[in-house]
Amino acid sequence: MKRVLDGINSPTDLKKLSEPELERLCGEIREQLIKRISVTGGHLGSNLAVIELTTALHYIFDSPKDKIIFDVSHQCYTHKLLTDRKSAYVDQEKFDTVTGFTNPDESPHDLFSVGHTSTAVSLAVGVAKARDIKREKYNVIAVVGDGALSGGEAWEGLNNAAVLDGNIIIIINDNDMSISENQGGLYKNLRLLRESNGKAECNLFRSLGFDYYFVRNGNVFCDISHVLAKVKNSNHPVIVHVCTVKGKGYPWAELNREKWHYSQPFDIKTGEPLSPVDTAETYENLTRDFLVNKMKSDPKVIAVTAGTPKIFGFDNELRRRFSKQFVDVGIAEEHATAFISGMAKNGCKPVFGVSSSFLQRTYDQLSSDLALNKSPSVILVFFSGISRGSRTHMGVFDIPLASNIPNIIFLAPTCREEYLDMLEWSIEQTESPVIIRVPGIQTVSRNILLPHKYSLPMRYEIAESGTNAAILALGGFFELGSEVRKILLSEYGISAALINPRYVSELDNDTLNGLVQNGCRVIVTLENGALDGGFGEKIARFYGKYTVKVLCFGVPKEFVDNVTVEEQLSRYRLTPRQIASDIIVAFKD
Amino acid sequence: MKRVLDGINSPTDLKKLSEPELERLCGEIREQLIKRISVTGGHLGSNLAVIELTTALHYIFDSPKDKIIFDVSHQCYTHKLLTDRKSAYVDQEKFDTVTGFTNPDESPHDLFSVGHTSTAVSLAVGVAKARDIKREKYNVIAVVGDGALSGGEAWEGLNNAAVLDGNIIIIINDNDMSISENQGGLYKNLRLLRESNGKAECNLFRSLGFDYYFVRNGNVFCDISHVLAKVKNSNHPVIVHVCTVKGKGYPWAELNREKWHYSQPFDIKTGEPLSPVDTAETYENLTRDFLVNKMKSDPKVIAVTAGTPKIFGFDNELRRRFSKQFVDVGIAEEHATAFISGMAKNGCKPVFGVSSSFLQRTYDQLSSDLALNKSPSVILVFFSGISRGSRTHMGVFDIPLASNIPNIIFLAPTCREEYLDMLEWSIEQTESPVIIRVPGIQTVSRNILLPHKYSLPMRYEIAESGTNAAILALGGFFELGSEVRKILLSEYGISAALINPRYVSELDNDTLNGLVQNGCRVIVTLENGALDGGFGEKIARFYGKYTVKVLCFGVPKEFVDNVTVEEQLSRYRLTPRQIASDIIVAFKD
Repeated sequence: MKRVLDGINSPTDLKKLSEPELERLCGEIREQLIKRISVTGGHLGSNLAVIELTTALHYIFDSPKDKIIFDVSHQCYTHKLLTDRKSAYVDQEKFDTVTGFTNPDESPHDLFSVGHTSTAVSLAVGVAKARDIKREKYNVIAVVGDGALSGGEAWEGLNNAAVLDGNIIIIINDNDMSISENQGGLYKNLRLLRESNGKAECNLFRSLGFDYYFVRNGNVFCDISHVLAKVKNSNHPVIVHVCTVKGKGYPWAELNREKWHYSQPFDIKTGEPLSPVDTAETYENLTRDFLVNKMKSDPKVIAVTAGTPKIFGFDNELRRRFSKQFVDVGIAEEHATAFISGMAKNGCKPVFGVSSSFLQRTYDQLSSDLALNKSPSVILVFFSGISRGSRTHMGVFDIPLASNIPNIIFLAPTCREEYLDMLEWSIEQTESPVIIRVPGIQTVSRNILLPHKYSLPMRYEIAESGTNAAILALGGFFELGSEVRKILLSEYGISAALINPRYVSELDNDTLNGLVQNGCRVIVTLENGALDGGFGEKIARFYGKYTVKVLCFGVPKEFVDNVTVEEQLSRYRLTPRQIASDIIVAFKD
Repeated sequence: MKRVLDGINSPTDLKKLSEPELERLCGEIREQLIKRISVTGGHLGSNLAVIELTTALHYIFDSPKDKIIFDVSHQCYTHKLLTDRKSAYVDQEKFDTVTGFTNPDESPHDLFSVGHTSTAVSLAVGVAKARDIKREKYNVIAVVGDGALSGGEAWEGLNNAAVLDGNIIIIINDNDMSISENQGGLYKNLRLLRESNGKAECNLFRSLGFDYYFVRNGNVFCDISHVLAKVKNSNHPVIVHVCTVKGKGYPWAELNREKWHYSQPFDIKTGEPLSPVDTAETYENLTRDFLVNKMKSDPKVIAVTAGTPKIFGFDNELRRRFSKQFVDVGIAEEHATAFISGMAKNGCKPVFGVSSSFLQRTYDQLSSDLALNKSPSVILVFFSGISRGSRTHMGVFDIPLASNIPNIIFLAPTCREEYLDMLEWSIEQTESPVIIRVPGIQTVSRNILLPHKYSLPMRYEIAESGTNAAILALGGFFELGSEVRKILLSEYGISAALINPRYVSELDNDTLNGLVQNGCRVIVTLENGALDGGFGEKIARFYGKYTVKVLCFGVPKEFVDNVTVEEQLSRYRLTPRQIASDIIVAFKD
């Protein structure tokens, strides 16, 4: 039987279909998405949940005239498939022609490049305001997951959207899940609304002044499309609260919604991953095991996450086991940061695990709530450094972000032993907030003497001595420094000291002065992060008064999208051979 | 008649008083605060509003065992007066012995150093969680203004506070005002609650799961104290919604609540300022006049503020006049940043005015919502640089914060003419987000050739030529550079080029290379901001491969509290003579 999908290439094609055909189309898209994600990996759960919703949006509204803005936008697959990019979902050879998030470079149907959560309402309010200023007429629609509502920016957006004097339609896509389970009081209200079929008097959205619509079964095309038809061209702010099922239509995903939030390639029949499970030790597991032991022996140690418990290995079972000592605050990084400050000030030992990209959401809290109060607490930054990720989730900015704030000790361990030593010290110390930059995914081991103490004043580790040059190889780039050193010695006869700076935020003036006094002519800094505002620049400033040369290696200031790590390393002249050759030039000049 | 106040030195003294005495005490405190603020200046409105509330808190609860956390904490005067610091409010010679915000260095009754808004609930949740982990028993109380509720961190905090399994008491101090009028849907609900005497079914706080109490007249001691007595030792999360009057008891302040949010010293009888009004041109007024003209001629120009409209001169009358083109989003800097991105993407020309200290609240939005999307928009950063302010409101971190994010053009004008030229260009360009660092309070004029265009690639202005050295004097420090240059020439015969870099975020490689080729031996950078992650370090990195010396002058990484500008300049070796003498040392070495 011919598929409805075969005749669909753009939203206009949808308008000709009957409702039964549209229902069939949704089923076909579902089948296709499961197939595609089983090959490429991707955000399975959220995408399967919004097929009917997205199809109905494109059936009822007229994108790109009407503006549809997806929050986080990891649920945009059906949207992309329906807006001129079908081949990227049905033709295996073209799977890599689209990114996993909305992308204005791909299509006029995508207004924004988005990847962080809780932003869509604010963006939509801006788009709607501009429309009204220009006296244009169309709908502005934000699609926001229930999980995103706990984020502060979503609240600020809703508060302002509610008083917009014109059309704005906010779809609350309520699948009763964040990445993990939802956290917080607002979800009680969502539950009350679901259980009362949207009729409960105490309604968060109505309290803000929104007109409110409820769709009990957002995975039935007609149910959602009929309500969307009603609110289309509304002249005032509207909330459409739509209940969907995360992972809808793929039994394994409906069964374990957290596991299937994002999936690597998998076998459709069994739901098992296609690649064998890697059994190498990771920093995730190392951290989990350390914290579990620590928490068992000390009830004051509290692990904190903002919606990503698995970042340091806390699965459902562990979360239940440590229900008092493990706190998921939901998607709320700002709260998490102030929360650990509060706990620290009152005698607990909080450890907040967060990815580099989401640390960005906490600058003011790092500064005002935490650093200004010198609250002794620990933040573990995962997924820092160059990665083959989306430009929306880059991990290279945490050093400029957090190392320039007073009172924070920012540490960069080079290996598992040093990491654990820093972790133990930072939890027990009572002086400052400490940030530890987790050095990578898989652990690296070094046989080193550990100081067990990282208070100020600080000392760098001189791992290898040398006379002509010195390589300050920060954290996860320590191995790279070691390779560069070997090339310099074996191929050019240059003896370079290899130094593990340990600290991102402060300098070891004695060691730095000593290098020059010992005759170093070239100082090299290596950091797996942005150069602008980073570690190397602090070293360059320190040596400003000397005539010694300083070469800083790291990542230039740019957003990069889905570029392999190898390609980035080579593009930024970060391979051992490139670095060695640049050092040689500095010696010759 | 003996004052009740004379017998009060700590909260324990309150417990012995009768209710009529406590009412009298509140009146005496009010009189005293008005007197004190008339001499020192300060946050008059909010402090007069919470005298009864604060007195009742200390009467009913047992601080410091019970923990009271004031949001923003600019309303803490009565709290400080009642907690061992009375002399700082009654004895003119001791007025300067306390700061204007809660301060753990002063008293165990102050848990946190706070100055940014919307943080108290999150801090309190952390304090309460630690209490429960330690199995201790006491009350944790957060005092939050209605204006703070629009901030995202407050929402994240409330969402988590609502599900805390234990005691937490959140006082919503509702004086129906932010710094200016409140903005957003949530204030409709507060109004509904006020008008229904707290009885409306649709209740934002109950929707989150809080137990809810309402106090209609929070300026009547008994009314508030009776409710506080009821909720004391609650075993679950409670909201006490207290209506107070901003400026209560000082007629001028009740009449114009915005004007009296903060006051300079004034004549109590007339309400007139003691110092004559300064008529010199300010960047505030210059910006206002420019924007007013621009908005008149182009309806797409939209001025945006997050709760501080007066930062660029938009008083009540102007706000009414430009009701379509002036948007106050309330205290919601994150929303403001995403909102301007949305407007820019849809063809408007937004200009967001914000103070340096509050720009901190937008890092992720600057990066994700704005820069990643290259939304052509303008952010004006006021109050940057060294100031004699609280450590909670420092203006030296905006350069490290925002100049290291890709795709943002960050400009630092040196004078009024350049500022206006940059402002005009940035509003009309369609390429990037632009941040302009307003160079100071009072305008400075220079007779310079203006480029009218600040797109990349960029060129520095060579204001004065020179051969031995070059001074890169950024923005508001241009005059300082000029003075240093004069000293070098007249006293040491050193000819230094004086350069206006114009751009904070990018380098003019050609000019920088040219300086070295022309024989410069010492390069000096001057910036009125933090050195770590700042402008000078970028210059130092650039020159790393050369043997030229680079001296970076600016502000070291530390929080400073109420230190005069002169003292800071001298402490940081930023006087013309200190800088010149350091340069001479570099020449001699």
